[in-house]
Amino acid sequence: MPLVRIHLPEAISPPFSTVISDVVHQALVDSFNVPPDDRFQVITRHAEGDIVCAEEFLGIRHSARVVFVQIVCAPGRTVDMKQALYARIVGQVAARTSISACDVIINLVESSRENWSFGNGLAQMAPSAIDR
Amino acid sequence: MPLVRIHLPEAISPPFSTVISDVVHQALVDSFNVPPDDRFQVITRHAEGDIVCAEEFLGIRHSARVVFVQIVCAPGRTVDMKQALYARIVGQVAARTSISACDVIINLVESSRENWSFGNGLAQMAPSAIDR
Amino acid sequence: MPLVRIHLPEAISPPFSTVISDVVHQALVDSFNVPPDDRFQVITRHAEGDIVCAEEFLGIRHSARVVFVQIVCAPGRTVDMKQALYARIVGQVAARTSISACDVIINLVESSRENWSFGNGLAQMAPSAIDR
Repeated sequence: MPLVRIHLPEAISPPFSTVISDVVHQALVDSFNVPPDDRFQVITRHAEGDIVCAEEFLGIRHSARVVFVQIVCAPGRTVDMKQALYARIVGQVAARTSISACDVIINLVESSRENWSFGNGLAQMAPSAIDR
Repeated sequence: MPLVRIHLPEAISPPFSTVISDVVHQALVDSFNVPPDDRFQVITRHAEGDIVCAEEFLGIRHSARVVFVQIVCAPGRTVDMKQALYARIVGQVAARTSISACDVIINLVESSRENWSFGNGLAQMAPSAIDR
Repeated sequence: MPLVRIHLPEAISPPFSTVISDVVHQALVDSFNVPPDDRFQVITRHAEGDIVCAEEFLGIRHSARVVFVQIVCAPGRTVDMKQALYARIVGQVAARTSISACDVIINLVESSRENWSFGNGLAQMAPSAIDR
């Protein structure tokens, strides 16, 4: 169910953008119990200057290689699950790419289960669809 | 009031992208009672590999021509209205383009009426604006 | 905390796109009490035809130079604060660029404080993080 948007500077090309895509998905599987085949992501690459970020916020410094990840997902995950998700995404990005843990910004937007159609024009996750 | 984002592979160029844009808007008019001139859409075209989708989810197979439609709209539509919207969008896309019904993914995000300004810096739909 | 998305026609290049970015941020600081260094924005530039807008809605005419601003922010601002934000953004865009006040469309999406990570994989704004 999540719809993931990854905003990257153009300077971050594959294989790093592929790693970020994989890492975000695996963290959703591990921390949010998302099914492994429930993967819907959009990567948008931006010219220099089109990702705008303060040099420092909350004591964390940001470089020109900052990455924004926005995840629209179903509501109901606990704060602990969300903290686990953030830690997993950022830990893996920092371990597997040259992107700093400081440069991964994540935002969740929650949208209820009836607000999704996964093909064929059906609301597969709507309460009425699940009851059937 | 809806803000529609359509994410397409670059391979889907006009006239098909125009048909998708028209179909989504008409479905909002027909199923969500959106005024015909309340049309605000952004189309983003992505290079191959930048729309990432599982090969199959919920028994529905996806191709490289998958399209994501995200609609930010006012809250309050019923599940039936949402199901009608999905069916109308996908039915028309499949009827009028070469894109498969399997390849249309839709997500709604609901945002209250005061959260919109349609020009001139006014909150035209805020309760206080409507009461006047 | 806000994540700002600015969608522009390609015809609006710097310095105007920079002014819009600055104006939106300053309005968030002034009207929403956002810290000055809490700035996270993505600018996306679209080819002609890929920002789709009715010619007129609610008596406001739109040109080919229409700009969409979507702001994901924490919930809880009053309607008055939101109206002040819209007025400030649009007043400053119209004063400092050649873009008409009619052509600035704004949408807010509210997402709770635990739904953000500002680097290092922490949920800096989650209630539990703030209590510590």
